[in-house]
Amino acid sequence: MDRYNSKEEYTEAVKARSSLPEGFRTAAASLTFFPREREITEPLPMNLSAIILDEPTSVFSGVFTKNRFPGAPVVIGRERIGGAFSRGVIINNKISNVGVKTGVADAERVLEAVGHALCCGPELFFPASTGIIGWRLPVEQMVRTVPELVAELSGGQQARSLFRVAENIMTTDRYPKVRAVECGEGRVVGIAKGAGMIEPNMATMLLFVMTDITIDRGGLDKQFRDAVAGSFNRISIDGDQSTSDMGLAFSSCKKPAVSEEDFQAALRRLCGALAVDVVRNGEGTNHVIHVTVTGTDTTETAVGIAKAVVNSPLVKTAVFGNDPNVGRIVSAIGDYAGNAGLDLPLADCTVSLGGETIFQRGEFTLDAKKEVRLSRYLQECALEERTEREALSYPRHENNVEIEIMFPAAEAGRRNDKTAGDYAGVGGCTGDAYGSDLSYGYVRENADYRT
Amino acid sequence: MDRYNSKEEYTEAVKARSSLPEGFRTAAASLTFFPREREITEPLPMNLSAIILDEPTSVFSGVFTKNRFPGAPVVIGRERIGGAFSRGVIINNKISNVGVKTGVADAERVLEAVGHALCCGPELFFPASTGIIGWRLPVEQMVRTVPELVAELSGGQQARSLFRVAENIMTTDRYPKVRAVECGEGRVVGIAKGAGMIEPNMATMLLFVMTDITIDRGGLDKQFRDAVAGSFNRISIDGDQSTSDMGLAFSSCKKPAVSEEDFQAALRRLCGALAVDVVRNGEGTNHVIHVTVTGTDTTETAVGIAKAVVNSPLVKTAVFGNDPNVGRIVSAIGDYAGNAGLDLPLADCTVSLGGETIFQRGEFTLDAKKEVRLSRYLQECALEERTEREALSYPRHENNVEIEIMFPAAEAGRRNDKTAGDYAGVGGCTGDAYGSDLSYGYVRENADYRT
Repeated sequence: MDRYNSKEEYTEAVKARSSLPEGFRTAAASLTFFPREREITEPLPMNLSAIILDEPTSVFSGVFTKNRFPGAPVVIGRERIGGAFSRGVIINNKISNVGVKTGVADAERVLEAVGHALCCGPELFFPASTGIIGWRLPVEQMVRTVPELVAELSGGQQARSLFRVAENIMTTDRYPKVRAVECGEGRVVGIAKGAGMIEPNMATMLLFVMTDITIDRGGLDKQFRDAVAGSFNRISIDGDQSTSDMGLAFSSCKKPAVSEEDFQAALRRLCGALAVDVVRNGEGTNHVIHVTVTGTDTTETAVGIAKAVVNSPLVKTAVFGNDPNVGRIVSAIGDYAGNAGLDLPLADCTVSLGGETIFQRGEFTLDAKKEVRLSRYLQECALEERTEREALSYPRHENNVEIEIMFPAAEAGRRNDKTAGDYAGVGGCTGDAYGSDLSYGYVRENADYRT
Repeated sequence: MDRYNSKEEYTEAVKARSSLPEGFRTAAASLTFFPREREITEPLPMNLSAIILDEPTSVFSGVFTKNRFPGAPVVIGRERIGGAFSRGVIINNKISNVGVKTGVADAERVLEAVGHALCCGPELFFPASTGIIGWRLPVEQMVRTVPELVAELSGGQQARSLFRVAENIMTTDRYPKVRAVECGEGRVVGIAKGAGMIEPNMATMLLFVMTDITIDRGGLDKQFRDAVAGSFNRISIDGDQSTSDMGLAFSSCKKPAVSEEDFQAALRRLCGALAVDVVRNGEGTNHVIHVTVTGTDTTETAVGIAKAVVNSPLVKTAVFGNDPNVGRIVSAIGDYAGNAGLDLPLADCTVSLGGETIFQRGEFTLDAKKEVRLSRYLQECALEERTEREALSYPRHENNVEIEIMFPAAEAGRRNDKTAGDYAGVGGCTGDAYGSDLSYGYVRENADYRT
């Protein structure tokens, strides 16, 4: 497991993997503004970022929040995702452009300025915003900053790296999140912002994936949706989706194609790593919890149980307190099964924590010594000491608290009149979910955010 | 709104409403034991309580958790609810009797001792337990305490009051919860334990309702289920149900019958008040939040939206921080609508907080002055000062944070091709839900409970 002993060590590791695939450039600029909505004496800062393709591409894909109060960038994005070509995305932090009547027109005006500066149509760009809900974008200042932003695209080494953008789109994120996977002669690189509903007001989750591997539009779309479903959709805490969540993927097609399997594996690994980064980065996160369920008769059930355990406030607080509280895990499984009306062989399932069996054949198998060992295990998985007053601005390690829930697949199969062919493998179906513990930090961050 | 200036004032008010209906008696006793599961040097205390009818009744009803890992008392209760007669319930705290192979046999042995002492069959009694999951009941000590418990039934004034039992069944509850409603010549009295999933390990919610009003078994069953559905089922945080939740209702039929409407109104009022007591009593609860939704085309949608808002961790932490954060409320509504695939007229809905409009016609209507007013409103609804170190052992007042979400029913009707007849009233369907804020206290209580 990766360990980082200082912010510098982490920054170096991230910078090293931030090089863009061929055919992309980035830019970053900043501005200040006085919001109309508040009487303040000091202007607020905002970052503008751009990820731009050297030439328009027809190979791009997008996924958007299901929230029925979507922000203006989501409204525009959903429309543009059907367009013939794209050249990239313009991102601002500080204001999410949600719940404002002029939101769509405001975003369009910024993109017009970008199109003008780059001599192409504004419809080639996606807008993305993250920040406070209900405030208007400072359109004039943003438009005035566009020339500087565009000039930055030819800014040498920095313009060939995603690092600056990963930093610039942060709101309450504590550190930039970049992952890269080499694949054939090309690479897939992605950045993410946010922490699902672990984050405060600015709960927006943004994901941007760039590759130079040649693939057709349908192929990228299928693989991107699949990778997001298996990663970001499994960390969505309580199933919440903010008004502005979006993910975009682009290929410049500058490098040779690879096999479908190789591309799929690369994209899944990338999205998986970024999704866990997002959980780990939550202001209140002191443990990342990973729940794996095996032996169910559908993947949906396995994922459903995993999410129910990872979202249980009682499991989350117990993990925060380094308490190996098996009762809460088992109760969360039973509660899910009851609500879903599932006839699972619960008394036959086995539950383990950190590799040690804690429930088997209908009974808890904890004893005093095992509890001490497991409490130590949970302490070792903690990201921070509870004595620390401030959250660290880098992750100390990448350990997760591993909870496994195993059903006797064969039996479940017989009870549900399924044949072996209905199962994905010998052990039946599997699924997993990631989540964070529930800490004082979560409450502090979310209660005191605007005050 | 009721205000209490001291624990004594609260205790007096509760005692005054604790008299039993005719035909019931209570008893309480305590014991100590060394659990097999832990090596400890000091014995642990346990309370035993009984609510007993003078004569067996055929008029009783029960509701049980849907959790698929039910505790032994739930397993036994589900079976006995179909019996011809009952004489009441025996309740213990400290251990919930869940996840133990001998659980059912252990509970039966205690009831046998009770039946022996009262010269009737053990099948006339329901068992109820609340406390730690996974530990075995101290059966021998409990059986040895039964004679003392039964002797207490003839214990004068105390045996005619529910107050002692309401206190005895507490685990992390901070104060006893008793409500009573007069109805015709009789009365309906109830006690509750727990705070839904606001509570720690001992998340059990217990509800016992006693009346002397004459009613038939089917009538009591229908009205009790209806009252629980409209009250306790609307406070269930995150939809969680613990392994041991149960509610039991008994009538001694010693007083004349009343009209169905009167009985229904009395039972609904009783359960409604107890359910809010349970929320207010949560260790971590500093605000009770009440969300009311009007103008939807089904009650289910109204309740679903209300629960989604009240369960949103972001709304809960904002309320804890006295932050009138309308963005989070609106996002929670949009998230629910998106997940449920509902085509609600979200842009046309109106949201108010403490009676002040904060969202209307697709726009936030907060300004700096209104924010100050609303922040003060939230502070006034707080149960405790944030400077206090210890949670109070009585509720200071019974104010709730009122959030109203109003849909334009007529429009919703037209869009869904419904006629006016499909609506419950002029304003369409309505629903509500209660919940608590999310505070440091919640995390403290749940993280450090067993350590």
